[in-house]
Amino acid sequence: MSKASAGNFFEDFSLGQTFLHPTPRTVGEGDIALYLALTGSRHVIGCAAPVAHALGYPRRPLDDLLAFHLAFGKTVSDISLNAVANLGYADVRFLAPVYVGDTLAAESVVIGLKENSTGESGVVWVRSTAVNQDDKEVLTWIRWVMVKKRDRSHAAPKAVVPETPVFVAPQRLAVPAFLDARDYETRLTGGPWLWDDYEVDERVDHPAGMTLDEPDHTFATRLYQNTAKVHFNQHSEAQGRFGRRLIYGGHVISLARALSFNGLANAFHIAAINGGRHVAPLFAGGTVYAWSEILATAELPGRSDVGALRILTRATRDVPCAEFPVEDGTPDKPGVILELDYWALMVR
Amino acid sequence: MSKASAGNFFEDFSLGQTFLHPTPRTVGEGDIALYLALTGSRHVIGCAAPVAHALGYPRRPLDDLLAFHLAFGKTVSDISLNAVANLGYADVRFLAPVYVGDTLAAESVVIGLKENSTGESGVVWVRSTAVNQDDKEVLTWIRWVMVKKRDRSHAAPKAVVPETPVFVAPQRLAVPAFLDARDYETRLTGGPWLWDDYEVDERVDHPAGMTLDEPDHTFATRLYQNTAKVHFNQHSEAQGRFGRRLIYGGHVISLARALSFNGLANAFHIAAINGGRHVAPLFAGGTVYAWSEILATAELPGRSDVGALRILTRATRDVPCAEFPVEDGTPDKPGVILELDYWALMVR
Amino acid sequence: MSKASAGNFFEDFSLGQTFLHPTPRTVGEGDIALYLALTGSRHVIGCAAPVAHALGYPRRPLDDLLAFHLAFGKTVSDISLNAVANLGYADVRFLAPVYVGDTLAAESVVIGLKENSTGESGVVWVRSTAVNQDDKEVLTWIRWVMVKKRDRSHAAPKAVVPETPVFVAPQRLAVPAFLDARDYETRLTGGPWLWDDYEVDERVDHPAGMTLDEPDHTFATRLYQNTAKVHFNQHSEAQGRFGRRLIYGGHVISLARALSFNGLANAFHIAAINGGRHVAPLFAGGTVYAWSEILATAELPGRSDVGALRILTRATRDVPCAEFPVEDGTPDKPGVILELDYWALMVR
Repeated sequence: MSKASAGNFFEDFSLGQTFLHPTPRTVGEGDIALYLALTGSRHVIGCAAPVAHALGYPRRPLDDLLAFHLAFGKTVSDISLNAVANLGYADVRFLAPVYVGDTLAAESVVIGLKENSTGESGVVWVRSTAVNQDDKEVLTWIRWVMVKKRDRSHAAPKAVVPETPVFVAPQRLAVPAFLDARDYETRLTGGPWLWDDYEVDERVDHPAGMTLDEPDHTFATRLYQNTAKVHFNQHSEAQGRFGRRLIYGGHVISLARALSFNGLANAFHIAAINGGRHVAPLFAGGTVYAWSEILATAELPGRSDVGALRILTRATRDVPCAEFPVEDGTPDKPGVILELDYWALMVR
Repeated sequence: MSKASAGNFFEDFSLGQTFLHPTPRTVGEGDIALYLALTGSRHVIGCAAPVAHALGYPRRPLDDLLAFHLAFGKTVSDISLNAVANLGYADVRFLAPVYVGDTLAAESVVIGLKENSTGESGVVWVRSTAVNQDDKEVLTWIRWVMVKKRDRSHAAPKAVVPETPVFVAPQRLAVPAFLDARDYETRLTGGPWLWDDYEVDERVDHPAGMTLDEPDHTFATRLYQNTAKVHFNQHSEAQGRFGRRLIYGGHVISLARALSFNGLANAFHIAAINGGRHVAPLFAGGTVYAWSEILATAELPGRSDVGALRILTRATRDVPCAEFPVEDGTPDKPGVILELDYWALMVR
Repeated sequence: MSKASAGNFFEDFSLGQTFLHPTPRTVGEGDIALYLALTGSRHVIGCAAPVAHALGYPRRPLDDLLAFHLAFGKTVSDISLNAVANLGYADVRFLAPVYVGDTLAAESVVIGLKENSTGESGVVWVRSTAVNQDDKEVLTWIRWVMVKKRDRSHAAPKAVVPETPVFVAPQRLAVPAFLDARDYETRLTGGPWLWDDYEVDERVDHPAGMTLDEPDHTFATRLYQNTAKVHFNQHSEAQGRFGRRLIYGGHVISLARALSFNGLANAFHIAAINGGRHVAPLFAGGTVYAWSEILATAELPGRSDVGALRILTRATRDVPCAEFPVEDGTPDKPGVILELDYWALMVR
């Protein structure tokens, strides 16, 4: 029997099955620097310790998405090594900050299964949770992926499709108890606009574009110990669907968020991701642009210093966003490649 | 009104105007490692804590140029987002070391303005200063950039052209009070030559060459949170002057300095940059070589352990420097791409 | 006389000659993060502080190979700047862990010399040793390289060919006294196989492949301050043997080790490298695969918690390893590019 794992196939999953994902990952100053080098993010609590302190954080936390990618990376070898497609995310909630020196571990439980009518593959829903070295939950999310079957003749399991919330209700957002934004100064971000300045249906273009080269995404996914072979192996992908390496969708999310600093500079923390859809693939050489639409605003219980904005950020490939493009991207018609619906905390 | 900033145009600047640049930036071990990975620098106080200690530094400082790039990067979104060209630097003085854990912030004041005769653009002179978390000045510099006008019909301001020193007088160099080089050992750098060994007009070839790929400069500028779009956006630059992404001139400065270790190994600290001129652009695929000429030597008041060397380092593209090339580079005639005139401290 | 060093040529070496290699190198969190970003390694003590603690390590050590590359890099400018070929390594022993904050220095002594019959070059054998800031030896190795002569007419030295051990005898492996693997849990690595499960002659495929781009190896060698120009200078290498930059063989070793996690997940520490042979060169665009063969198993004196496995890992270029390819690679017949024979410690 081979001592190497080929990953799980659809028939290897069962409802309620739990995975303790290897390997734990200690995060450090180097991860923060690499995240900046990979994204150019200027979101302020991840790059400025005194600002984090002024908001009540005991130390500079990792960028929310860096924590997400590290935790997500853990789940790949058990859940999606044989995935055909990453179908979606829901109910992604950032429960506690992650700091330098913390060690993240992740586990997942299978909450849904549905074989495709072709008998070739099926959809697996998992609820994944990341904890730190004190077993404190820092992040939780649902995702669903289409996974190949090893053996077409294997009987289909009873279909169970879990309900996933369309969005996280604002009262479920985890707002750190220590947070205190009363002394926040907009000159630190250069963005004068605060929570009260944004209106539902308002559109904000984030004018810059960022071109990606292969190492941008391979360095990122290796840093996250994400083992999905579509990102790494040109030799096998040359025979694959696209003929080339596919950029990790999470990297597009990070770039869109980084670009959004210009227009949403005071949206200092992602509290939850309501949903994410990778509308079209991205390859090296493509240039990512982004724009955002305010879907909702929400006051937070007992807080006058911070509110929540529900934001739909669309990223495009090779299409500037001054005209707020919404059409789907296809290989022939470049356009939107990502729709990311999330709640940000913003100073009032 | 758009909530994203399009940057300042020439008519947005006024004499005496002050900018507190967002966002502060905390520096860490990761920045140091990335700087090494980007440049291969072997200059010793930035890579060897015990050597820094032996020279009196309380801790290993960041490479001088890393501190410069981080501080410079802060100024781009206010000063040069709409720049046509970076025309020059002067009076760049390194006032205090920057250490891991420090947080840098930068501000600029407009000290000169002169509209071009075309009415399309003008030159803006700024004095920029970077401070650490204790509001201690660590770095100050003058630069001037040609910035586009938004509206050609806008009236020209009164022309004010500040005087900039051709070079920093040696008595104005900031020599850390703690510095004590009496126990310095040249075996730590492998370079046997000390301050007294260099003569004015002496030329030193730095024989290695370094080829750049796109990620070399995009990782660098993202790490520095430098938002100049010419470095990042292939989609827009394909329509631009060069048809491709332009490498940040500061990265060429860093490479030239890193290459100069072989020949100037004991020039352990940049005390000031007298001037820098980007003679020709550099693009990915180019190979950087460098050579140096000693312009002057200076004793430092009250010090017998350390002296200053005024060095003109020229970097070239695709031209080895054994014959000390001096001709300007042009797209058709590759050659010198950088002239950097600086003061280094060197052990005597 | 030029103040830049052109490196040593064959006639510059003499038996018993000692080199104290510049420059010392302090290691930090950033080096660890970059090593992960460059290799995707999941070997657990280098990425998970609590697991390192559980094994008795006072802190998370650097990956063994990261320490090796940093130490090796120091030796290049004195030993192999004018090397024609890196012929081999032997008796590479990891004597003590390297931790964040440590400073590595390296020295070498010439233990063998043999001029080639052509009179153009000769083979130099060196024993190199790396020490930390407390002068504690952390790593020692023999390597031999073919080095060019500066002057063909220079008389050949007396040939001295040192004996090099074919492999490190298990009783010479340095096992940290603090090591205690009794509480080790395989769920942390996801690999259920322990020392007792592996049999001599057993073969293990490590199914993933990793495609390399130029920045993968240039970032690595710059981080290691390895100055071998074949890795960096496309302008000169265009005229060279291969017409292009050659990937540092050590990076292939790191990739093969990282890929081997899937199949050898509990081989948590490299105790010694018996020998390494770079069978064929690797260039950017190539995809590295790897498989391993168990050459021997050894109990360790007085230990029931940990044993040693002698492993031969072969890396290939553009050839998946499910069929365990053994033929040599040549430019026309891609295949094996590396044979690495090493001792790993594995939990029993």
